[in-house]
Amino acid sequence: MTRPSDVHDTVATTSRRRLLRNGAVAGGALVVAGLTGVEPGAASESAENLPPNVPEWMKAPGEPMGSQPYGTPSPFEKNVVKNISKDLPQYLSASGRTPLQDLDGIITPNGLFYERHHGGVPTIDPAQHRLMIHGLVDRPLVFTMDDLRRFPSESRIYFLECSGNPTYKKPFGKTASDLVGLLSCAEWTGVSLKLVLQEAGLQPSAKWVVAEGADAAALTRSIPIEKCLDDALLVYSQNGERLRPQQGYPLRLILPGFEGNMNVKWLRRLHVTSEPAYSREETSKYTDLMPDGIAREFTFYMEAKSIITRPSGGQRLMTRGFHEITGIAWSGRGKISKVEISVDDGKSWQEAKLQEPVLSRALTRFRLPWQWDGQPAVIQSRAVDETGYVQPTLAELIAVRGDNSFYHNNAIWPWRIGADGEVVNALA
Amino acid sequence: MTRPSDVHDTVATTSRRRLLRNGAVAGGALVVAGLTGVEPGAASESAENLPPNVPEWMKAPGEPMGSQPYGTPSPFEKNVVKNISKDLPQYLSASGRTPLQDLDGIITPNGLFYERHHGGVPTIDPAQHRLMIHGLVDRPLVFTMDDLRRFPSESRIYFLECSGNPTYKKPFGKTASDLVGLLSCAEWTGVSLKLVLQEAGLQPSAKWVVAEGADAAALTRSIPIEKCLDDALLVYSQNGERLRPQQGYPLRLILPGFEGNMNVKWLRRLHVTSEPAYSREETSKYTDLMPDGIAREFTFYMEAKSIITRPSGGQRLMTRGFHEITGIAWSGRGKISKVEISVDDGKSWQEAKLQEPVLSRALTRFRLPWQWDGQPAVIQSRAVDETGYVQPTLAELIAVRGDNSFYHNNAIWPWRIGADGEVVNALA
Repeated sequence: MTRPSDVHDTVATTSRRRLLRNGAVAGGALVVAGLTGVEPGAASESAENLPPNVPEWMKAPGEPMGSQPYGTPSPFEKNVVKNISKDLPQYLSASGRTPLQDLDGIITPNGLFYERHHGGVPTIDPAQHRLMIHGLVDRPLVFTMDDLRRFPSESRIYFLECSGNPTYKKPFGKTASDLVGLLSCAEWTGVSLKLVLQEAGLQPSAKWVVAEGADAAALTRSIPIEKCLDDALLVYSQNGERLRPQQGYPLRLILPGFEGNMNVKWLRRLHVTSEPAYSREETSKYTDLMPDGIAREFTFYMEAKSIITRPSGGQRLMTRGFHEITGIAWSGRGKISKVEISVDDGKSWQEAKLQEPVLSRALTRFRLPWQWDGQPAVIQSRAVDETGYVQPTLAELIAVRGDNSFYHNNAIWPWRIGADGEVVNALA
Repeated sequence: MTRPSDVHDTVATTSRRRLLRNGAVAGGALVVAGLTGVEPGAASESAENLPPNVPEWMKAPGEPMGSQPYGTPSPFEKNVVKNISKDLPQYLSASGRTPLQDLDGIITPNGLFYERHHGGVPTIDPAQHRLMIHGLVDRPLVFTMDDLRRFPSESRIYFLECSGNPTYKKPFGKTASDLVGLLSCAEWTGVSLKLVLQEAGLQPSAKWVVAEGADAAALTRSIPIEKCLDDALLVYSQNGERLRPQQGYPLRLILPGFEGNMNVKWLRRLHVTSEPAYSREETSKYTDLMPDGIAREFTFYMEAKSIITRPSGGQRLMTRGFHEITGIAWSGRGKISKVEISVDDGKSWQEAKLQEPVLSRALTRFRLPWQWDGQPAVIQSRAVDETGYVQPTLAELIAVRGDNSFYHNNAIWPWRIGADGEVVNALA
C-alpha cells in the first residue's frame, strides 16, 4: 500500500509530466490548480458555501420511481435534439443531424442518431415484416423476423455517415452538427449476411445483391457480392434495444464503412443479380460529378475524416488558459491510426491522444490538452487511417474533384477562435 | 477477387466447420438451411408472396422528419420498459430493472438503464450544482459543472450493478430482469477523480473520501483513497449525451467494478478523511451478515458473474432444432476470460464464444450454438475472470455465507426448459 504522502507526490508529479509531455504547458511552470483557471490555492467559490448551504432539491423527496418506465433526458437538456433541416423537400430529402458538439465519447444515444429519409418513416409491424432473398440463388427464401432472430448473432460498433456530409459549396454550416452531423455511431446486433445468403445458396453468376427498403421510396441500392460475404450484417438491434423506426425498424442492412444510403433501412428484399440495378439512388443521386463531366459511380467507402467538436462553431471559450481540444475521427477503410491537431492555422501539427480501444470503422475519440493565450487562433484536426491515407484539405479536394460534386467531402475543417473566445467556421 | 462459385463453397464449408467445432451439431450432418428450422430447399413462406405483395406502409409516405426531434422506440416495442418493483417503499428502496432478456450486445440504452434510489430523483439545475472537496486537503475547492468540463476528459465502457441482485432467499424472480436486472452497461465520459483531488492537494493523513449525493437521502459512501487515485471518474455523460436524471444528472461518481450504491449519483461533496464515515448505507445496509452473526463490511468489488438472457425465464422455444444460447458476463475485478455453458443440468460444460473486444469491467456478450432435441433441459452459464475466479453455484455460496446475507449473490443461475419449450427459473 502506498503511503498518502507518496500518493500525493506521485499524483502531482505524474500529472505535471503528462501535461508537459503533451506540450500543453508553456514554460514548464504549471501549477496544477491552474487547470481550471483559478489561482493556485484559491477556490472558484468559497468552500464555506457548502455545507450547510443545502440546495432546494435535497429538502424533499424527488420524482418517484416509475414516473419514467422508459427514461428521457433532463429538462435542462431540452435543446440537445436532432438538428433538422427545414429547407429540404420533406418526402424526398429530409434529414436530422446528430448534435455532435454536445456529445462525448463515441456512442451516439439512439434518440440523437442521425436520420435521412426519402419517403418518410414507415410504421412497420414486425410480425408482418418479411425479408425475401431471390434471384441467382438455389432456394428463394422468405424470412420472418423470428426466423432471423434464430440465426447466430453478432454485435459490433460501427459509425454510419451520409455521403453528402457536408457539401463542397457555400453556405457552409456554423456548427459541427450543421457541417458533419449526418454521422453517428452505435453498437449493432444482427446476423451475418453471408450466413443468410448461404441459406439461399448463391449461384456462380451471383455478383451483386440489390437491397430494397420497405419505405414509400422503396429505396434501392446495389452491393458487390464481396462486401455481402465479408462483414455485412442484417441488424435488428442498436445500442442494445431494437432499432428505432428512424433507423430502419425492424431490419436494417449494415455495410461497415460504406456510405450511409447503402445501409438500407426497413430491409425487405435482397435480389441476387449479375449486374447492378442502376437505381435512382446510384445514378441521379449518390454519384460524384467530376470537373470533366464524368461521374464517379459506386463510391462506396467513406474515407478517413475527423472534426473537432470542442471547441467548435457556436461555442465560446470563456477564459484563457487550459482547454481540452477534443473531437472524433473515423474511416470506412478500417482503424484510425493517428489524429494530428494544429492550433496555428496549419503551420504546425501535434499528435492527439486516441481513446482506447480504437475500433475498426467506429468513431474514435481524440483529445489534446491546450493552453489558449487569448489571441485569435485557427484550430483543426487531420485524421490518418491504417491504410496510410491522410485526410485532405478542402482546397486539395476541390483541386481534384472540382465543386460539381455533392458527396464524399472528407475535408479537414478548421475553426477560428476570436480574441473574444467566439468560435466560428473558418471556411464559411 | 474470388469467383462466385468459390465464394459459395467457401461459405458453406466455413460455416459448417464453425458450427461443428462449437459442438452445436449432432452427427455432423448439418444442412445449413436447417439453421432456421426449415427443410433444406424449402422457404418458410412462399417466395411468390413478395413482390408484388407490397405492404400497406410502402403505399404512402411515412412519418415526416421532425415528428421526433429526440427519438423514441417503435410503438411495437412498448412493452420493453424498465421492470419496476411495486412492493418496495417508494422513497427508501425504489428500483427499476433493465429488461435484460429483451436486449442484445453490451450497451444498455439510456432509457432502459437500471435505477435504484433512496430518496427519489432530484431535478437539478446544472448551473446551480456544485461539487465541494474539503477535509484533509491543502486547498478546499468548490467546482461548478463548467469548471469540471474544462478538465481533461476520458471515456470508458463499464457495467454498473446493484449489490442486492438477486437476494439469497425465495421467492426468486421469473425472468433474467427479475433476477439480475439491477445491472446495465454504458460508455461514461468524465474527469479522472485523481486529477481533481490533486487540484485540492491531498494531505498525508488522507485515507478515505466520503462521497455525498444531492438527493433527499444525501446518500453517503466511504471510498478508499487507493480507488480514488486509480480508475475512479467524475462523469457527466453516459452513452454520449449528458447523464439522465435517474443516473445522477449532472454529476456522478463512477468506481469501476465496485457495487452500484458506491457510484454516488447527483454528487455534491467529497470529504477527504482518515477514517470511513460508517454511514447508513455502509452499516445497516450494504453489509453482509454471515452465519456466525458477524457482518462483512466494505465488500466493494462485484465478483465474476453471468446470466443466459436467451433462452431465459418467461421465453419459449417454438421449435426444436437450432437455437443460439446467448447472455452476458462481467467481473468487477477485470476482464472476463471464459464463459462455460452447460445444457445438461451441470453434467458437462462447453466454452462459449466471447464477443470482441472484451473490455475490463464491462459486460461481455457470450454465445453458443445449440441444437435443442425437444426434451426437457437445464441450461446455465459460468463465468471465469482474469484473476482465475470461477462463478459459484448458489449452494456453494450459501454453504459459505448462509442466507442471512442480502448482497453480493453472484451465483450461477440455471433455466429449465420444458418439453413444451417453456423456460422457467430452475431454482424458483
